[in-house]
Amino acid sequence: MAGELLNKEIIIRDEMEGSQIYNKGYFGNPVPGGGLQLSLIEGIYLLESGRLEIKRKGRRMTLKHLLKLANAIHPSFDIKYIVYRDLRQRGYVVKPNLEPLDFRVFPRGGGPKKTPSKYWVSAISERAIFDLEALVSHLRKAMSLRKRLLLAVVDEESDLTYYDARIVGPKGKMKSLEKGMIAHALFLEDRAMILDEEEAKELHSISFYGNMVGKRLQLSLIETAYLLKIGAIEVKDAKTGRKMELNSFLRRARTIQPDFELRLRVYEDLKEKGIVVKTGFKYGSHFRAYEGDPQKHHARYLVHALPSNYRGMWPEISRAVRLAHGVRKEILFGKVADKIEYMKMERIRP
Amino acid sequence: MAGELLNKEIIIRDEMEGSQIYNKGYFGNPVPGGGLQLSLIEGIYLLESGRLEIKRKGRRMTLKHLLKLANAIHPSFDIKYIVYRDLRQRGYVVKPNLEPLDFRVFPRGGGPKKTPSKYWVSAISERAIFDLEALVSHLRKAMSLRKRLLLAVVDEESDLTYYDARIVGPKGKMKSLEKGMIAHALFLEDRAMILDEEEAKELHSISFYGNMVGKRLQLSLIETAYLLKIGAIEVKDAKTGRKMELNSFLRRARTIQPDFELRLRVYEDLKEKGIVVKTGFKYGSHFRAYEGDPQKHHARYLVHALPSNYRGMWPEISRAVRLAHGVRKEILFGKVADKIEYMKMERIRP
Repeated sequence: MAGELLNKEIIIRDEMEGSQIYNKGYFGNPVPGGGLQLSLIEGIYLLESGRLEIKRKGRRMTLKHLLKLANAIHPSFDIKYIVYRDLRQRGYVVKPNLEPLDFRVFPRGGGPKKTPSKYWVSAISERAIFDLEALVSHLRKAMSLRKRLLLAVVDEESDLTYYDARIVGPKGKMKSLEKGMIAHALFLEDRAMILDEEEAKELHSISFYGNMVGKRLQLSLIETAYLLKIGAIEVKDAKTGRKMELNSFLRRARTIQPDFELRLRVYEDLKEKGIVVKTGFKYGSHFRAYEGDPQKHHARYLVHALPSNYRGMWPEISRAVRLAHGVRKEILFGKVADKIEYMKMERIRP
Repeated sequence: MAGELLNKEIIIRDEMEGSQIYNKGYFGNPVPGGGLQLSLIEGIYLLESGRLEIKRKGRRMTLKHLLKLANAIHPSFDIKYIVYRDLRQRGYVVKPNLEPLDFRVFPRGGGPKKTPSKYWVSAISERAIFDLEALVSHLRKAMSLRKRLLLAVVDEESDLTYYDARIVGPKGKMKSLEKGMIAHALFLEDRAMILDEEEAKELHSISFYGNMVGKRLQLSLIETAYLLKIGAIEVKDAKTGRKMELNSFLRRARTIQPDFELRLRVYEDLKEKGIVVKTGFKYGSHFRAYEGDPQKHHARYLVHALPSNYRGMWPEISRAVRLAHGVRKEILFGKVADKIEYMKMERIRP
């Protein structure tokens, strides 16, 4: 088989040869009137796997030469080729050039005009920016067309990790707390304490607030803010002995933790969904989230609150996903806008 | 038993009662001439465990009252008390007030004047700054006196995690690369490729540089810099076709990765120690480090390069330690100064 490099594309003029290549793997696009047009990425893959020769002005080109050329012409060609090659080698039909994503991937045994595509794949360098807004917008589009979105991240050493991303709706079994004052809390720098044993036990028995230490109940900063907001506790400052109102409490919380209100938004939202929310400190995330009694069940989720316009580094995302996987929890990124969306990310082998 | 609160301390005047308290757990300091002097933290613990009454001006004080008082007087009293209480409940003799650390802890069955202390313990709020310089300086001091340094980190919900920190000297089995030009590399945005199969195989066979993809060898940015520096490769830019010299390569690397030189320092140091170094991307750390052949053994370490004056947030540290633990590797923080020191951190149950 032979193709000719013409203007960044490869043309197979022979009709028979063209349809043979197309029929075995759906490479390229058939040209009306006969022949096949291949993109550089497809041509290089076929050359590397020994199924095609490529000529320019009658002279045979080496793989080395074509790779140099492709890398000089296309930004991030190398990253894309690594992903394309890997998916093809896993036996998938991969079609390039779907904007803004890189590839459409068909289920094994499927192909264009035969089956709908299964995955949309984005080939990403580890050094690229993780852009939450853009990702969620791709995700919404993919999900509306029943596609799964795969993020193929190529690390420094050209090793590949695939992440499956989706938007999910977590739900728990807890009933929301009836409003009404239950306990008196003493505020200590960055946490609060319920000193009265009866009050402590009552508050703890409802939705597992706080942590019993001896006969006292320790509340976290966020629990204190939430319980104060719904009127379940009164708070006094341990230093001054003065009562703290919600607004001044929130101001104080912000000085202790600059992203406090972002986290509180997610905390409140999860509480409304009937979820028991505890700190995720040990896992380096914001929250662990339980669908029911945390004494009886493991946390299903680790949740991290992110501003809607969050732009971060991929190694941080990979770390969070890896950690959740290692402790058999699902990682959710809570994107905070007018409403909160939860994006679940999971490492998979496609 | 009864003590009297006087000027932020508790005095047990009765000689018999005082020595009973001291002898069973080494609480307080015997007063010359008879009696015992307890710090607030010790007094509160004894009151809470029902072994002591505390009076002020003849009136009995409640635990609630004393906790309020202690928290109003001492910064971070609550954090320190949580740690003190936990260690005492685990059966350790704990002596307060060792500056700059919080407690000395004796081995089980031991005590002051009987055995040397085993741990030095620092009680830390999750919200405190992780100060690498200060930590390493405490660590050096502790290690020179054969003490183990325990960092007791209290999270938002007053749950405790203990970290054992120590300075270690990692070593590997690889011989260093004999200098001499081996291969020609093509630089592609943020990585390089050896296109010649012979050269690729030769370079890869020495100390496992790069990643074979088909017949090519992919080198990471840091491997490329290192190999260029020791003269093992020549590098050409894929875009311009021009040869790249070390200095201009390093300038380019810095624009791709602002902390490139910090990482390179650690990479070079580990190579000198005979270690095989690969990217830690999948684990969200800088490197994974192998003592020998990475095909035959798992990486023993995850290594993160930090500037000597690094000040960060505890949740990030806890995440890194947790992750390493989950994949059964040891986490090393490489503190980069004139020389590089490796601090290992591990979660333990004391």
